[in-house]
Amino acid sequence: MGINYFRRDDRDLKFVLTEYLDLPRLLSYPAYQEFSADDFAMMTDEALKVGREVLGPGLQDGDRQGCAYEDGKVTTPAAWKDCWRVLFANGWAAATSNPEFGGMGLPAVMGGVLGDIFAGANMAFMTFPGLTTGNGHLIENFGTDGDRALFLEKMYTGQWAGTMCLTEPDAGSDVGSILTKAVPDPEAGDPRIYKIEGTKRFITCGEHDLAENVIHLLLAKIEGAPAGTKGISLFVVPKIWVNPDGSLGEPNDVFCTGIEHKMGIHGSPTCSLSFGENGKCRGILLGEPHTGMAKMFQMMNHARIGCGIQALGLAASAYDTAREYAKERVQGAPLANRHGARVTIVHHEDVRRMLVNLKSGTEAMRAFIARLLFLADVAAHDPDQEERDKALDQVELLTPLVKAYNSDFAYNLIRDAIHVLGGSGYCSDYPVEQYARDAKIVGIWEGTNYIQALDLVGRKLSMQGGKVFQDWLGQVMGFTAKHKEDPDFAPDMKLLYKAGQAVGDFALRFLQYFKEGRFSLVPMYATRFLDCFAETAMAHLILEQGLLARGKLAQVEPSSSSGAFYAGKVASAKFFCRNTLTNVFGRHLALQQEDLSAMELPEEAF
Amino acid sequence: MGINYFRRDDRDLKFVLTEYLDLPRLLSYPAYQEFSADDFAMMTDEALKVGREVLGPGLQDGDRQGCAYEDGKVTTPAAWKDCWRVLFANGWAAATSNPEFGGMGLPAVMGGVLGDIFAGANMAFMTFPGLTTGNGHLIENFGTDGDRALFLEKMYTGQWAGTMCLTEPDAGSDVGSILTKAVPDPEAGDPRIYKIEGTKRFITCGEHDLAENVIHLLLAKIEGAPAGTKGISLFVVPKIWVNPDGSLGEPNDVFCTGIEHKMGIHGSPTCSLSFGENGKCRGILLGEPHTGMAKMFQMMNHARIGCGIQALGLAASAYDTAREYAKERVQGAPLANRHGARVTIVHHEDVRRMLVNLKSGTEAMRAFIARLLFLADVAAHDPDQEERDKALDQVELLTPLVKAYNSDFAYNLIRDAIHVLGGSGYCSDYPVEQYARDAKIVGIWEGTNYIQALDLVGRKLSMQGGKVFQDWLGQVMGFTAKHKEDPDFAPDMKLLYKAGQAVGDFALRFLQYFKEGRFSLVPMYATRFLDCFAETAMAHLILEQGLLARGKLAQVEPSSSSGAFYAGKVASAKFFCRNTLTNVFGRHLALQQEDLSAMELPEEAF
Repeated sequence: MGINYFRRDDRDLKFVLTEYLDLPRLLSYPAYQEFSADDFAMMTDEALKVGREVLGPGLQDGDRQGCAYEDGKVTTPAAWKDCWRVLFANGWAAATSNPEFGGMGLPAVMGGVLGDIFAGANMAFMTFPGLTTGNGHLIENFGTDGDRALFLEKMYTGQWAGTMCLTEPDAGSDVGSILTKAVPDPEAGDPRIYKIEGTKRFITCGEHDLAENVIHLLLAKIEGAPAGTKGISLFVVPKIWVNPDGSLGEPNDVFCTGIEHKMGIHGSPTCSLSFGENGKCRGILLGEPHTGMAKMFQMMNHARIGCGIQALGLAASAYDTAREYAKERVQGAPLANRHGARVTIVHHEDVRRMLVNLKSGTEAMRAFIARLLFLADVAAHDPDQEERDKALDQVELLTPLVKAYNSDFAYNLIRDAIHVLGGSGYCSDYPVEQYARDAKIVGIWEGTNYIQALDLVGRKLSMQGGKVFQDWLGQVMGFTAKHKEDPDFAPDMKLLYKAGQAVGDFALRFLQYFKEGRFSLVPMYATRFLDCFAETAMAHLILEQGLLARGKLAQVEPSSSSGAFYAGKVASAKFFCRNTLTNVFGRHLALQQEDLSAMELPEEAF
Repeated sequence: MGINYFRRDDRDLKFVLTEYLDLPRLLSYPAYQEFSADDFAMMTDEALKVGREVLGPGLQDGDRQGCAYEDGKVTTPAAWKDCWRVLFANGWAAATSNPEFGGMGLPAVMGGVLGDIFAGANMAFMTFPGLTTGNGHLIENFGTDGDRALFLEKMYTGQWAGTMCLTEPDAGSDVGSILTKAVPDPEAGDPRIYKIEGTKRFITCGEHDLAENVIHLLLAKIEGAPAGTKGISLFVVPKIWVNPDGSLGEPNDVFCTGIEHKMGIHGSPTCSLSFGENGKCRGILLGEPHTGMAKMFQMMNHARIGCGIQALGLAASAYDTAREYAKERVQGAPLANRHGARVTIVHHEDVRRMLVNLKSGTEAMRAFIARLLFLADVAAHDPDQEERDKALDQVELLTPLVKAYNSDFAYNLIRDAIHVLGGSGYCSDYPVEQYARDAKIVGIWEGTNYIQALDLVGRKLSMQGGKVFQDWLGQVMGFTAKHKEDPDFAPDMKLLYKAGQAVGDFALRFLQYFKEGRFSLVPMYATRFLDCFAETAMAHLILEQGLLARGKLAQVEPSSSSGAFYAGKVASAKFFCRNTLTNVFGRHLALQQEDLSAMELPEEAF
């Protein structure tokens, strides 16, 4: 039996929700006005309980049992049935989904808090409900009333599950090259129904035993469609055909041909699916032909933010394990008092450095996601059109950062957690090595991190002629100008100011490279630009939190638990700026080399 | 059945051995004069064959089968028996061991080449022979003639295996706190024989089925010994007692109580061992009482360099897999020609960046290890005492760097290899995810990387009042002065010069912090100092290689395979300086913040 190590506490979650974010603004929107801050605090407590009592206990067993494949069927870990039941029965899975179809209608920011908790408790399991509701949101947005009536409630309540089917054996990052075909099916008597034929690969939760049906959202090319991504259409392809009255019909000629053996998320089956091998697979076209890619991108963008949340959840759980271990494990004396008594390792300087790196890193990621989701809520519900537009632009700008930076950062932070535990960190009794294995996938799926970097420099940077980026940068620079003489954070403001300059310089240089036809320099430095941009954005937010916490610290007893928490927030802000943000400058120096040595060597040299 | 992905080619190995290093100098020493450069080239080819045909085929199966524990016995993966047989029958395992006792007597540099190949082919298996011969070297150095006669040949030929037993449940990094006891055994009739009682944990290869006996080298405290590391003695504790005539006697009351489940190296059992539970365990004192720690450090230092080699071997194999995949996998058009044809991903800029990162990173690690082992050979055999002393000082200075930096760097490089393969990199069909899992342990064992950083700033930096460090720095600065106007490498020399200044500044500041009693700042930045130091040292060596390769490139047909290789070496040198060495400056800026925020927050804030 695995051990349940889930120990997330509520403090930083509630700080973000009720102290840091402008929650009253969200609660003023008609969509959210039935909720209160107290509701969210209570839900946070309840979700932590679900993490502790339902999801956490299955984490290690799920990893060890994994999923099993036999004759087209996939068996999931034993604990998953109960997790599935609880997540749907209590509305958690469809927390941010439309109440009209069984969802709870919570704001995105609250969805982020739940994701942080649930992914941190059991990421592999959470892929099942995550894909199901994400899929449902797309049917909601692009389906007909009939589609919505047919699919949504059953998906939001867990009777049916969902997937997204993009990747094929020869089309991964290059999704425009998919070969799966769709042909109108004249026998169906419905022009939206097509015959589907093709093979999909790396389909997360593509087949399993948690729900009576699996609704696939599949990308395919209608015969005669334009080449590339502009010829892709989106289809709803149920594993078992759904009759017009909602009852289950015949199996829909969708067959799982195998699952992958992977580094981690063993409890989440990564399936190869064959559609229409016997010519009997049908799919329902969602929206107009050849408009599938843009539609899928809506789910994809949602899933990319989801990746950032998963990365946060895992890193935060790794921090939980590391801090608990460090406060219990006794080893030697610290260097600064080397002839003193043996102490718990939380007193050893390098362990502290790693712990505060984990602490400040997870808090910075949490702040970043909270801000992004807040903007998403504003974009969806603010009464002012201009506010909505501005917020949406920022969401689009920052989404690749949250996806790529968080996933890489989490992998590095979890590495530190392993090191805090030493040899025990490498052993499977503790969960940190599993977090490392589970976390690695987040940098790959929903568009690898390099695809994110290309999205950033190729599309997002140039939005509105660069104005969206300039708006972001202006906020950061205005913030540093306002606080540059701050008695506690002046050095941090200076670093942030310089980092903002470096990020701005990156952007200007990229523009220049495009103009001068020195195209290769842009992708060569795109990932590093993304990292610098993300660290600068996060430093801005964690300094906002630091200022806020310092003010609150003055109002509480320093030795109280609130006092310790606020002092910890102040330290997190300083540590992040002085130890993580400083990486910007090494990368910026690398950019100044304008180095293309990687392109210059002959292929035969590899 | 697992797939054999071992594909190391000989080119960079032979470049290092026969073009880069001053091999004639080593071959002039009496100990090595029977060898020639051709011998080493031939051995390299043979070792690659062993990697391909013996060790490589077992890599994946060994990971999947793992080791099994039952009733005190450990069963190793099926393929291990044949690996063990071949490695010992052909002398590979004891390649650098004393020929007097069955070793091949090769120089350390050649041992490094073999380690690079063998660890890259199958690291988990290589822990068995590595510990066996490492253990033997210690008995050779500190045992009596009788000990040597009794143990060595059987260990160097694989009849018996060996271990090192330091860690206990409550004494990991803090080895001075061990509780294992040794009491003189008057019944033995030999004052060197003690009764042993205690529990050891995390003992690599502590029990297994590959040899008829396991010879443990164990740290214990003789009753009444001083506290801490100064009271530790070293004992030879055979699993089965060895009679004076070399025959096996009774079992020696050593019992394996279990093995760990781990992130990686599944084929290498990590054992808990109980010594003397029935009062019948005997050990032979090696050398004087209370001198065990210094003796064990000889094996430990050897093992630390071994860690650096393992890290290199794994990263180099990850690079091999990545480059092969990148030259075959076709996806999309590169950004610089985005409307062009689909190409193999080796033409995509970010994939190239990662590949050259892997290439230059492994080459830099290989150069670093080769230089260190060359110095070890000089230290052991040069006729000039002063040369020997100087070389030994440099070996001691650089050992923590090779151990810690390489292991962290390899973990990051393997991460890049996973990303080159995308989703496939996360799946176990390819070996890169296993390399990541296997590699993680290297940063932890033989003293965690933080212990290495403390060793560096606490002991090595102050050797001879700082002269040893100054000698190293002087070499780097002299090199940059000589080549600062180089037509190809001038920008790299400038970066190296500045990096040398930054490393020198770190050292001066540490001195100042000690003087001023600001002790905590030293360990807080020790790991980052180590990283900066290592990158600077590696940049120096890879630039030496770049200069050499440029000269050779001028003498060959550019389109020949040698031409491609030398052009690749030039690119590696530039890439490393302009993209990896530049990290020094971000860390140096962090140092300038003199940030102790991690020490300032209350423990309750964690």
